[in-house]
Formats: sequence, C-alpha cells, structure tokens
Amino acid sequence: MPYWEIFTPENAFTPEDKEQLSEAITSIYVDYQSLPKFYVVVLFKDMPANTMYVGGKPANNFVRIRLDHIARQMDGAEIRAMFMGLVEEKLAAFVKDRGYDWEVHVDETPIDLWRTQGLVPPPAHSDVEKLWAKENRAIPYEVAS
Amino acid sequence: MPYWEIFTPENAFTPEDKEQLSEAITSIYVDYQSLPKFYVVVLFKDMPANTMYVGGKPANNFVRIRLDHIARQMDGAEIRAMFMGLVEEKLAAFVKDRGYDWEVHVDETPIDLWRTQGLVPPPAHSDVEKLWAKENRAIPYEVAS
Amino acid sequence: MPYWEIFTPENAFTPEDKEQLSEAITSIYVDYQSLPKFYVVVLFKDMPANTMYVGGKPANNFVRIRLDHIARQMDGAEIRAMFMGLVEEKLAAFVKDRGYDWEVHVDETPIDLWRTQGLVPPPAHSDVEKLWAKENRAIPYEVAS
Repeated sequence: MPYWEIFTPENAFTPEDKEQLSEAITSIYVDYQSLPKFYVVVLFKDMPANTMYVGGKPANNFVRIRLDHIARQMDGAEIRAMFMGLVEEKLAAFVKDRGYDWEVHVDETPIDLWRTQGLVPPPAHSDVEKLWAKENRAIPYEVAS
Repeated sequence: MPYWEIFTPENAFTPEDKEQLSEAITSIYVDYQSLPKFYVVVLFKDMPANTMYVGGKPANNFVRIRLDHIARQMDGAEIRAMFMGLVEEKLAAFVKDRGYDWEVHVDETPIDLWRTQGLVPPPAHSDVEKLWAKENRAIPYEVAS
Repeated sequence: MPYWEIFTPENAFTPEDKEQLSEAITSIYVDYQSLPKFYVVVLFKDMPANTMYVGGKPANNFVRIRLDHIARQMDGAEIRAMFMGLVEEKLAAFVKDRGYDWEVHVDETPIDLWRTQGLVPPPAHSDVEKLWAKENRAIPYEVAS
C-alpha cells in the first residue's frame, strides 16, 4: 500500500524516468503521511500499440494510472482534493509536459486485508510504524490482540 | 472511467476486433448514460499460455474481464442487472460466440478520487459534461467550490 | 471470483509452480468456503527488470499480489485474519521460502456486478451452487426474481 499501476505506451519512460517518478510518488506519502517508504509500490506496464482504447479508438499516446489506497483512508473532501492535486503535480513532468493524454483514479481497499512480508502492518503513527519508516523495512513485532 | 481490463489468450483479438469491441463497450455508456465517449477506457492484455489458471488448472481458452466504475454509481438492483445484461450482449460476438470461457466483474470506486487530463470531471448531466460529450474532450472550466 | 493477480520477476515461477500455487490458492476457497473450483482465477504476470519499484527504488526480487473477493464477503475480524493467515501459508513455499520480498492486499467488490459464463452465480450454499461445485462448471438455472 499504496499500490500504483501505470500503463504507458511502450518505452515511454526510461528506467531513470521510472525511478524518478516512483520517487516523486513515494514522496507524497512520506512527506504528508509519514508512511514507511517501502509501503509505496509502483508497477509500470508497457502497452504496445493497439492495446489501449479510449472512446472506441486506439489511444497510443495515453497514460492510464490506477491506484489502490490501503494504509490510510483520507477523510474529508479537502484532504482528498489536496491529494489528487499532489498526484497531478508529481505526474506533470513525466506525463502532461511530455504531451501525453492521461487519466488517474484511486480505489480504497480494506486495511485489515493487507499484509507485507507476511506481517500485519502496525497501526498508523504507532511506534512500530515509526520504526518501520526509520529502518525502511518490515520488522516483526507483537500484534496487539 | 469506466475503466476496463480485458485479459485474453495471445492474439485472440485482432486490432479490428479490439476497436469494434471497445466501440461496443463505449456505446453502453454513451447510449444509456450520455457519458462523454473519451471517458471509456479499455485496456487489452495478451496472456501467454500458462499465465491464466482457473480452479488450479491452466486456462488457455479463457477471457477475464475486470472493470472499475467511477463516474456513475448505479442505484437499484434493476439497473445493475440491466447493465450486466448489456455487458454480456456486447461481449457475446467476441467471446461466447467464439467459444471462449469468460468471467466479468465490476468494482465501484470513489468519484472524488478521479481526474482526467488533470481536471475534476464535471457533475453528471451538467452543462459542462454535455459540452465535454459533444466535443469528446476534457475542457477546463470553473469548478464549483 | 476470487480473482488473483500475481506480479513476479520474469520467470520466477515455472508452469509447474504456477499450477501448484494456483491449486493451493484454490484449496483455500474449496476447503473453507465450499466454492466451486472454477470460481478461482489466478493470473500470473511476469514483470521485467525495472518495472516494479518499491519506495522509489527498482525492486527486482519482489512479488506483489492483489486480489478481489466477490462471491463471499468475510464477516468478522477473526475470519478475515484467518483468511490472511491461510494466504500467507499457501504462498510461503513459493515466495518467502525462495527469498522473495512480497506484499498482498485484497479488495472486496459487489456480488451483484459479477457474471460467469454469462450467468448470475447462484446464492452461496444453494443447491445450484453445490451442483456447480460438484460438476465444476457453470450450469444454466432459473434465477429467482
């Protein structure tokens, strides 16, 4: 969590682009929500010509982004709009400024149906979460029952 | 929104098939909900042999479709069943009639966590949405606050 | 339903691995929920180097699993935790024991927006579902209205 899927035309992004974009995406969650970095997963998927269609026509200049939010549900219209604004800001240099069309949507999924490295992730802002963030890895701990 | 992912055996569909099927899918939303055409995104994904499994066995004659609905939540059992009926009707010529096995499911995701071309999509049936539909593109407008 | 997507480094799993893992996944639903086997769909997706990023860095030793639950919503914290435990147990031989990093999350989607072979799946634990399970295929029946 968060889990991003980014569909692009083939070879739209170099490995350097992908690293930079995934760093920019990671920074949203680290800077604003103090999430451990390693919670942020971004998958890039090259889509060959004639595999993406928009309005019934091939869309070979299109970037489609779909993400799931798990660890933090965003409460309140303001914070949700702010998040979407941050997403657009981080994407701009890679997508809008390069002349691609694009669309983004987010789903929210149940926090209790999530495991990382086989562990129940610690509660938001708990000491264990802070430790995981500091060490940037999942560390076994005693789950409160 | 709507966002369709269609997983097929490799080369199951020609580019012409994909264009026709994505047009048929688009027509559901344009004819029944007056959505702008460009809201309808369909991604086709070729799945090589031994990458799809059904009930623990390789399923190399299988089409799996997963979609997200964002812009319109469908209220009422009747309209939801009617929508699923339309989906099956549009798919039939490409899937059932060609002898594939198939399965479809739909998720519904939050409308406020969706942007197209960096813009907040206009309210359903608003004048701006009608303009977007007529021009078949996202046009900046003043978002009511 | 259930619908699993498993993203792995290229060639992480042989066809034999994939068949065994999908059988292990299927057994969760058959043994604990008496679902028809063919409800369980698992898609495996090879991810080339530099297409998966974790915390802004390439993650070329990472298995990411995302699944949708449709047919059965799991009620109660205990059953949900038990399910996640079973998932980890079934994955271990293929993922943890082979030294991969991994993460899993589950979404839950509306049961009424699901069709298999064009049919409305029968109610949980109904006689028709039992017949589908026994025959391991979708059989047309009269849907109660």
